[in-house]
Amino acid sequence: MTYQTEIQLPAFSRGYHLITSYVTRALSDLPEAGLLNVFVHHTSAGLMINENADPSVRVDMESIFNHLVPENLPFLEHTMEGPDDMPAHVKSALTGVSLTIPIANGRLKLGTWQGIYLCEFRNRGGGRKLTLTVYH
Amino acid sequence: MTYQTEIQLPAFSRGYHLITSYVTRALSDLPEAGLLNVFVHHTSAGLMINENADPSVRVDMESIFNHLVPENLPFLEHTMEGPDDMPAHVKSALTGVSLTIPIANGRLKLGTWQGIYLCEFRNRGGGRKLTLTVYH
Amino acid sequence: MTYQTEIQLPAFSRGYHLITSYVTRALSDLPEAGLLNVFVHHTSAGLMINENADPSVRVDMESIFNHLVPENLPFLEHTMEGPDDMPAHVKSALTGVSLTIPIANGRLKLGTWQGIYLCEFRNRGGGRKLTLTVYH
Repeated sequence: MTYQTEIQLPAFSRGYHLITSYVTRALSDLPEAGLLNVFVHHTSAGLMINENADPSVRVDMESIFNHLVPENLPFLEHTMEGPDDMPAHVKSALTGVSLTIPIANGRLKLGTWQGIYLCEFRNRGGGRKLTLTVYH
Repeated sequence: MTYQTEIQLPAFSRGYHLITSYVTRALSDLPEAGLLNVFVHHTSAGLMINENADPSVRVDMESIFNHLVPENLPFLEHTMEGPDDMPAHVKSALTGVSLTIPIANGRLKLGTWQGIYLCEFRNRGGGRKLTLTVYH
Repeated sequence: MTYQTEIQLPAFSRGYHLITSYVTRALSDLPEAGLLNVFVHHTSAGLMINENADPSVRVDMESIFNHLVPENLPFLEHTMEGPDDMPAHVKSALTGVSLTIPIANGRLKLGTWQGIYLCEFRNRGGGRKLTLTVYH
């Protein structure tokens, strides 16, 4: 392992937020080649790698995930934390909370159109905590 | 790599089962910092990290995933292994079969509410096999 | 890290394609034990590990994912790249773009029925680029 660090993101609104620059700023010294693991320590948020250019993609992500996992499904039992909570846990299961990304030439090796996303599934999720682990 | 070990879980019923303690018991000697990879060697089960406190979350996970990927969709071709089989493969694609989790201070660094889940998507899946790989 | 290499897959048709042999052929020299990370550098394709035997599983994967995330949902904004584009981004979020797989006895340690899939979500995605990173 090269190093491990923890960062706290600002509180984002519900939706899909590009955090590539938050991650790279916290990684001052990347190895020539290796892997980065990004891990979010919450059960109602998620991480994904997706299209980093057109903001309408983020709007549609929110719409389609809400369509897939709507609030207020009549059979739900876990409702005491609000109608956005149980759908948030399911969305987190769908996107996952851990990403592993190659490092090459001392930089994250993402595709041209790839960015790292924090998916905020709660109406008021607060500032989410990430752990970044770098291997070479 | 620090070490790699294989464990066999007991046969769980269809549903979502916290296995954090099975995993940590198999990891006798964790490094100060590093990563753990958990891998399930099956195509009709999955792994996820999710809410570890309220049992109603596990009930709703089962309900919502069944709602997302119901059995007996009329267009299915892969039906000879029973109506729970093809939906199980899709659910496994959705959750994934491999988790990478940071290790810090000689322990798994999970969030307060995070636990490791074995998602058993078959009616009778039997005892599932995991490989645990620890890096420092 | 043992080594890192990049491969370009042939242009696959829309659907689910076993690429285990493409990956293993590019890994000439695996360590006794370790991990392999496979990463696809695109936002409208995905990677998964799933059933490697019955071709009807691949047909049903395509049908069920199209059923989950249909084209032409009336509320979509990101439509200028064609009706298959935004659903492709969502499917990529669902399967993920990064897989970590254990290596044991100098081979990928997959379950008997597990294979590595390239999920091509576009009608004409072209040849997709993968980075393979091996750790021991």
